[in-house]
Amino acid sequence: MIELYTAATPNGHKVSCTLEELGLPYNVHVVSLSKNEQKEPWFLAMNPNGRIPVIVDRAEDHVVFESGAIMIWLAEKTGRLMPTDAKGRSNVLQWLMFQMGGVGPMMGQANVFHRYFPEKIPAAIDRYQKEAKRLLTVLDGRLKHHEFLAGDFSIADIANWCWARTHDWSGVAIDDLPHLSRWIAQLDARPGCAAGLQKPPKNVTAAELVQSAQNIVVR
Amino acid sequence: MIELYTAATPNGHKVSCTLEELGLPYNVHVVSLSKNEQKEPWFLAMNPNGRIPVIVDRAEDHVVFESGAIMIWLAEKTGRLMPTDAKGRSNVLQWLMFQMGGVGPMMGQANVFHRYFPEKIPAAIDRYQKEAKRLLTVLDGRLKHHEFLAGDFSIADIANWCWARTHDWSGVAIDDLPHLSRWIAQLDARPGCAAGLQKPPKNVTAAELVQSAQNIVVR
Repeated sequence: MIELYTAATPNGHKVSCTLEELGLPYNVHVVSLSKNEQKEPWFLAMNPNGRIPVIVDRAEDHVVFESGAIMIWLAEKTGRLMPTDAKGRSNVLQWLMFQMGGVGPMMGQANVFHRYFPEKIPAAIDRYQKEAKRLLTVLDGRLKHHEFLAGDFSIADIANWCWARTHDWSGVAIDDLPHLSRWIAQLDARPGCAAGLQKPPKNVTAAELVQSAQNIVVR
Repeated sequence: MIELYTAATPNGHKVSCTLEELGLPYNVHVVSLSKNEQKEPWFLAMNPNGRIPVIVDRAEDHVVFESGAIMIWLAEKTGRLMPTDAKGRSNVLQWLMFQMGGVGPMMGQANVFHRYFPEKIPAAIDRYQKEAKRLLTVLDGRLKHHEFLAGDFSIADIANWCWARTHDWSGVAIDDLPHLSRWIAQLDARPGCAAGLQKPPKNVTAAELVQSAQNIVVR
């Protein structure tokens, strides 16, 4: 059994959607970001960085933090959602890294300055919304001539989709990116992806969301 | 032979240091960021994201972009700098992802607001310097009880070191992080790491540095 420590965020969803797509059994443990549970000693013992998601793969007695590393672990464990030949694997890892180092951090910063930051700083909001749009445009260009980002449907698609689908929250429009929109709709329609977005269910209050956002900003 | 398209930045050094540590033969092609060469069509054909570094592995007829994906490619090609057992590999990938999604982007943003941004925005400078310091403190905690980040010396060490060693440029002091300092000195002393930092040699002028930084900010 796999124990998943998570919250209803794009990085959490990367893992729950991967688990659902793979059909692996897992238990969800909701980590309250509003209570800063991810900074408690029991959590830091699993991930010293104090961030969700984390999995414990009991069958292997192995703990994995960082959403990208968890996705690779699950894909390799099952031999699915990532090719096993060297070049095919490498293509998936390139687009996974593009999300890890680009789409995720930059949309995250757009959210911070657009939504949460105590001051309104137009230059910072503009910087990150522009960079997020630029990265989403790179995805659109790739998807113009490819059904998925790297060969067959893979963890690279799940990772980028979990962030790209939240473009409205970052204040970034994608009306002029038809290939990205086509691909988002395609992943939205997958039962595994849709189920993963419900783990954990979004039953937090608005006040909790603001509180957890403030914790993220000031941490 | 491996063709390396790069510039003298931490992400470029991640790859040149890996190649030097592995003793693989390679040709360096300097990409002028000040001339925005990474946005020219010949470069975008290799990496649609328009960022260095990129490698072309001629023996395999394979192009790889994203520094983290290149490091994995090189480690797997040689069977070195990353364990081949599943758990050992996973431990290295976790700390590599920590750099890709955390240390790199956050130190990068600290550099932007501390060094390059047209306006001085104290709240943004403070945000990213604090986050960079927090991430470097996580590394320090890990290195307190471990010689290297994940078992033997690996690509996870090279990736994090290439950024951590530039803490002064980000305006972040590490005098109170003795384990991080010990590890930085240890990697500094490795001939392969030291050689990689010289590829390409830093012969750019101050004006070119400012120009390329401005390109980064406004891209």
